[in-house]
Amino acid sequence: MTSFSRPSGRAPDQLRDVRIERQFTKHAEGSVLISFGDTRVLCTASVENRVPGFLRGKGEGWVTAEYGMLPRSTHERMGREAASGKQGGRTLEIQRLIGRSLRACVDRKALGERTITLDCDVLQADGGTRTAAITGAYVALCDAISVLKKRGDITREPVLGAIAAISVGIFQGVPVLDLDYAEDSNCDTDMNVVMNDGGGFIEVQGTAEGHAFRRSEMDALLALAEKGVGELVQMQRAALGL
Amino acid sequence: MTSFSRPSGRAPDQLRDVRIERQFTKHAEGSVLISFGDTRVLCTASVENRVPGFLRGKGEGWVTAEYGMLPRSTHERMGREAASGKQGGRTLEIQRLIGRSLRACVDRKALGERTITLDCDVLQADGGTRTAAITGAYVALCDAISVLKKRGDITREPVLGAIAAISVGIFQGVPVLDLDYAEDSNCDTDMNVVMNDGGGFIEVQGTAEGHAFRRSEMDALLALAEKGVGELVQMQRAALGL
Amino acid sequence: MTSFSRPSGRAPDQLRDVRIERQFTKHAEGSVLISFGDTRVLCTASVENRVPGFLRGKGEGWVTAEYGMLPRSTHERMGREAASGKQGGRTLEIQRLIGRSLRACVDRKALGERTITLDCDVLQADGGTRTAAITGAYVALCDAISVLKKRGDITREPVLGAIAAISVGIFQGVPVLDLDYAEDSNCDTDMNVVMNDGGGFIEVQGTAEGHAFRRSEMDALLALAEKGVGELVQMQRAALGL
Amino acid sequence: MTSFSRPSGRAPDQLRDVRIERQFTKHAEGSVLISFGDTRVLCTASVENRVPGFLRGKGEGWVTAEYGMLPRSTHERMGREAASGKQGGRTLEIQRLIGRSLRACVDRKALGERTITLDCDVLQADGGTRTAAITGAYVALCDAISVLKKRGDITREPVLGAIAAISVGIFQGVPVLDLDYAEDSNCDTDMNVVMNDGGGFIEVQGTAEGHAFRRSEMDALLALAEKGVGELVQMQRAALGL
Amino acid sequence: MTSFSRPSGRAPDQLRDVRIERQFTKHAEGSVLISFGDTRVLCTASVENRVPGFLRGKGEGWVTAEYGMLPRSTHERMGREAASGKQGGRTLEIQRLIGRSLRACVDRKALGERTITLDCDVLQADGGTRTAAITGAYVALCDAISVLKKRGDITREPVLGAIAAISVGIFQGVPVLDLDYAEDSNCDTDMNVVMNDGGGFIEVQGTAEGHAFRRSEMDALLALAEKGVGELVQMQRAALGL
Amino acid sequence: MTSFSRPSGRAPDQLRDVRIERQFTKHAEGSVLISFGDTRVLCTASVENRVPGFLRGKGEGWVTAEYGMLPRSTHERMGREAASGKQGGRTLEIQRLIGRSLRACVDRKALGERTITLDCDVLQADGGTRTAAITGAYVALCDAISVLKKRGDITREPVLGAIAAISVGIFQGVPVLDLDYAEDSNCDTDMNVVMNDGGGFIEVQGTAEGHAFRRSEMDALLALAEKGVGELVQMQRAALGL
Repeated sequence: MTSFSRPSGRAPDQLRDVRIERQFTKHAEGSVLISFGDTRVLCTASVENRVPGFLRGKGEGWVTAEYGMLPRSTHERMGREAASGKQGGRTLEIQRLIGRSLRACVDRKALGERTITLDCDVLQADGGTRTAAITGAYVALCDAISVLKKRGDITREPVLGAIAAISVGIFQGVPVLDLDYAEDSNCDTDMNVVMNDGGGFIEVQGTAEGHAFRRSEMDALLALAEKGVGELVQMQRAALGL
Repeated sequence: MTSFSRPSGRAPDQLRDVRIERQFTKHAEGSVLISFGDTRVLCTASVENRVPGFLRGKGEGWVTAEYGMLPRSTHERMGREAASGKQGGRTLEIQRLIGRSLRACVDRKALGERTITLDCDVLQADGGTRTAAITGAYVALCDAISVLKKRGDITREPVLGAIAAISVGIFQGVPVLDLDYAEDSNCDTDMNVVMNDGGGFIEVQGTAEGHAFRRSEMDALLALAEKGVGELVQMQRAALGL
Repeated sequence: MTSFSRPSGRAPDQLRDVRIERQFTKHAEGSVLISFGDTRVLCTASVENRVPGFLRGKGEGWVTAEYGMLPRSTHERMGREAASGKQGGRTLEIQRLIGRSLRACVDRKALGERTITLDCDVLQADGGTRTAAITGAYVALCDAISVLKKRGDITREPVLGAIAAISVGIFQGVPVLDLDYAEDSNCDTDMNVVMNDGGGFIEVQGTAEGHAFRRSEMDALLALAEKGVGELVQMQRAALGL
Repeated sequence: MTSFSRPSGRAPDQLRDVRIERQFTKHAEGSVLISFGDTRVLCTASVENRVPGFLRGKGEGWVTAEYGMLPRSTHERMGREAASGKQGGRTLEIQRLIGRSLRACVDRKALGERTITLDCDVLQADGGTRTAAITGAYVALCDAISVLKKRGDITREPVLGAIAAISVGIFQGVPVLDLDYAEDSNCDTDMNVVMNDGGGFIEVQGTAEGHAFRRSEMDALLALAEKGVGELVQMQRAALGL
Repeated sequence: MTSFSRPSGRAPDQLRDVRIERQFTKHAEGSVLISFGDTRVLCTASVENRVPGFLRGKGEGWVTAEYGMLPRSTHERMGREAASGKQGGRTLEIQRLIGRSLRACVDRKALGERTITLDCDVLQADGGTRTAAITGAYVALCDAISVLKKRGDITREPVLGAIAAISVGIFQGVPVLDLDYAEDSNCDTDMNVVMNDGGGFIEVQGTAEGHAFRRSEMDALLALAEKGVGELVQMQRAALGL
Repeated sequence: MTSFSRPSGRAPDQLRDVRIERQFTKHAEGSVLISFGDTRVLCTASVENRVPGFLRGKGEGWVTAEYGMLPRSTHERMGREAASGKQGGRTLEIQRLIGRSLRACVDRKALGERTITLDCDVLQADGGTRTAAITGAYVALCDAISVLKKRGDITREPVLGAIAAISVGIFQGVPVLDLDYAEDSNCDTDMNVVMNDGGGFIEVQGTAEGHAFRRSEMDALLALAEKGVGELVQMQRAALGL
């Protein structure tokens, strides 16, 4: 194991540099540019005073997400989904994950009959875009909620707690935290973990890319994720000035 | 806990009745009707002597899956995806999961330049359609491989081991195995687990529907899943006459 | 003509074995698996308490149909229409035919402002899927109407009479009844006939595949169809316990 | 019967005024504006030196058709299919019918590896657009074939005989020929008949709009159709200067 | 310059023969077949008593346009947009231009809450289809407005003035008016100009196809356009009997 | 006129602050974030070693563009085009304009058989997104060409000269340069002008939003555009270090 090293030179349990820049754009109620190393995702939170049909008249709100990658956010140019006429399966899967994760930290009754849409657009991809998106979207959501509170539109706090996400995986036999692209494209197991600030799990999605993973490996990965999410929650709090 | 009971009267660690009916239809190389209680999924395996563009000329095969629900497989009629003009996010997510899971048990070099498509169509839904689909698709895949071997198209065994899947969740505070619809629509946590016959994990997808779940709950769920997959693998072997 | 024989060994005016299995699935108000030999179609009837926009407020109901083939219901796997993003011309043509045919036997005023959708999904195809679909959909429709009557939702009988359909064609110069795939793909003329139990014609769709057909041939085909539909109506009655 | 009269004042077995105007537009190899009374359809035949994939390298040609209605060819404006993003079921059904009908009069080996596409666009609709389209498309096809023969591209005659089509129906209890819109929207039975100049049937598509039709009615309708097609074939010959 | 000649033999500032045929089809409130030489466009104006959502309840009307080309209006057959499932960028661009241009001459308050849709369908293309469409659509619009006035549906005149359009360009170094296809496909600069009868500009769209154009060239082109539009407005007046 | 003032306080012939930031993202061969005041557009240039079908084997390259707006780049959230399944007419119109404009400054023979795609994605919109996109895309294009030259892939310079674009319009009766959103949404005439560094016009697109514009107004607008483009070309040169 002495010879093991990550492409980035990080320790196995070390996050990349994380930066959270609020008010990156001016129109959205919340607008956050989050960076996990070279991965950069613009997360905006937009408030609209209507809810989807299935919620109309029920006195509760909705939180949803959309995800996209700019065509040249990646090493090779990808086709633009708007031009091909449909969102791919990966896109839909990620935006469903972001939406579910954020709904887990919101009291939708307290939100009232309004929708908050979290648009997570990847400006530059280097692995971990979905976990960066969830972590940044939480901050954008908080900013949007603050706007609603300042306007007097809502009185009760709808945010139940913080949410953050990180990827973990087994790279060259070693469990590592926060995979970048060089690791992600060569790892045996890849797991995305969404947790709240109370240490509870919101989503765990693990995939064996090469060999199947053992319970002991899973335990190691979950421990890494707990550490990483703990640090991310601190950074979110700092960014929000809490 | 004395007052706890599952809607079906099953014990917490008890599977529903599982039936595996091979050669349910006559054209496909593999055709399996699998039932997990009232959930019935027709899984066919179709062999074609071509591979997707990105694999052409590389001497290896491909395994992929498609998933669909008949419009009235559910309590209320769902719109037909062919009529609406696109597959929804849930459909794409499930068929990607099935495809990844089955590829995990196949030596694609041994398969040669051919594609096996696993079509999993839900005739009747009562919870757990994706896990039934994976479990049945494995049997259909084995039958299709047998046809290829009988024809002399392949010489080396491409199936590396068995794959099965089961759902677990926390219902009324109790970890339970193989959720049916009555449980699935009221549970706090829902987890789908795909494993191989060596006890390795292929996919773990857990979602907190209500409150976030703790590590201890996750441990209990994974133990239930190990038990359930072990039993399913036995049933697959019996169905295949092994 | 002494040397003429059908691939199946049937007499020219002989139907395939027809089986009608009610309550094949549990959620639909009517659910019938019908078999014409190896052709198997699952026909479900779903009741919804709304009508299309053009009928709203007019006090009458609607009967419509959708048709699909499972991808490997056929000799070679067909692309899934949900994945390709549209229903092909043949699919639309068949489902329009099924819908028109079934509407011909329903008093839509007596049905009230509700829609019955007949989903006809082909599990296994061996020729004659559209005629099997119409014949089976009629039985599913009757079961759904019975549910409505039992619930007290309707008081007047909306079913005006029975409807059944059969294909006829000219195979090797001989008019034959109920073509299977081996005949259908090699016949000169193919005609689908929908009739009611009073001997009236609802739809006649004849196509010359090879040479044009003469009036005398048409007369022979219509006579065969009359015989076939007569037998099918008896089987429908028996299946419904009438 | 003394009181019976058609809205147009025609005799029951009387066609509308039919006009066939060749070379209506200048780019197409064949371009025919055909009028059945107020129904006007522009039929162009376009030759391309390629065939669909399933025919490549087989030394035979293809004949196909597309059909469309200008948005305001009808009493009320219809949505433009190009704008809604798909062709409706009726459109697909009609263009499949036109294509099948025209292929029935062409020796595709003699045509060589080229495709003739018949575009039938309705400028003004007043009932019977599909039968006008088939009748006009035949003339456009002949003109396109003449171009190919003049160019020396083909040596053997690919046109096997003439094809024409007419609608018949039962209006106020009386079998009538060539229904216009006023009749078509109020008739009990509507039948489209495609025949060749030898009196053979290519397609018969009859639909009971109101009550089911009897064999005797069908016989009367077919006799009317024979008469009408005979007259149309004469007009086609005259238009072509034969 | 002595050697300069246009393919058609026209003088540089000479329009093609323009014909305006009203009531070309019978259902539309306005129906005009306009010809600019061999370019022929059918322009219909359809009145509907509803407005798009964003105008509902505001007491004003809407004018919009759709544009299409018949597949064989061109030298080589183009794919049918209805079949390919979407309107191309050029189509959308042209119909947006037509709509904006016509709205510029209508008092939408005087129109009341109704929509006039101008369908411009190219029967034969030989350059300048969009300018012919705008010029013809204005006449169709006037006819539709006359119908509304005759019916008493509107009392105040909604047409504020005439609108016409013409193309100008630089062909072999010489500014010319009303380019036909032979010129359009070989010119250096192509400009479409929409003007009103008061000499005001509604739209100017100039594109350098080859070398960039100079201010002096632009001035010459605009002068030609003014002359051409002046003549077209006279022809519109004559056609309308004003 | 003394009371005239622009919402931004700028002089009528004054550009907004323009910033050009190269290498904004790391994967693209050219990546430029351009700001015209609060309008910010990310322009990337991607090189691919293939050309569209119509250019294959002709020894020349292709330059094309795609345009998009992030859903919350605007005051109110716009629907995501990837989700709605198609690019709107405005999007297609703008990306066609960008592509044409950039092709006007490239010697496609010198580029060789490769495609440069300019993706222009609006991060924040405040008027003038298409002119900012063209101006920024030119810089990204230059950077991509430099990469090709450094790699030795091309030897001859393919960039024929600089291209920049600016909007001009008539706001409260006064011709002004570089409209921001507050002006754009309230102006009478809006004109986008693309020019090269030699003072030649590439594209002129003027639209009368309110009253038609006169020749004298057009002359004033073109003069403003010439001034603005001249300044932009200087900024492009400075940004490129020329």
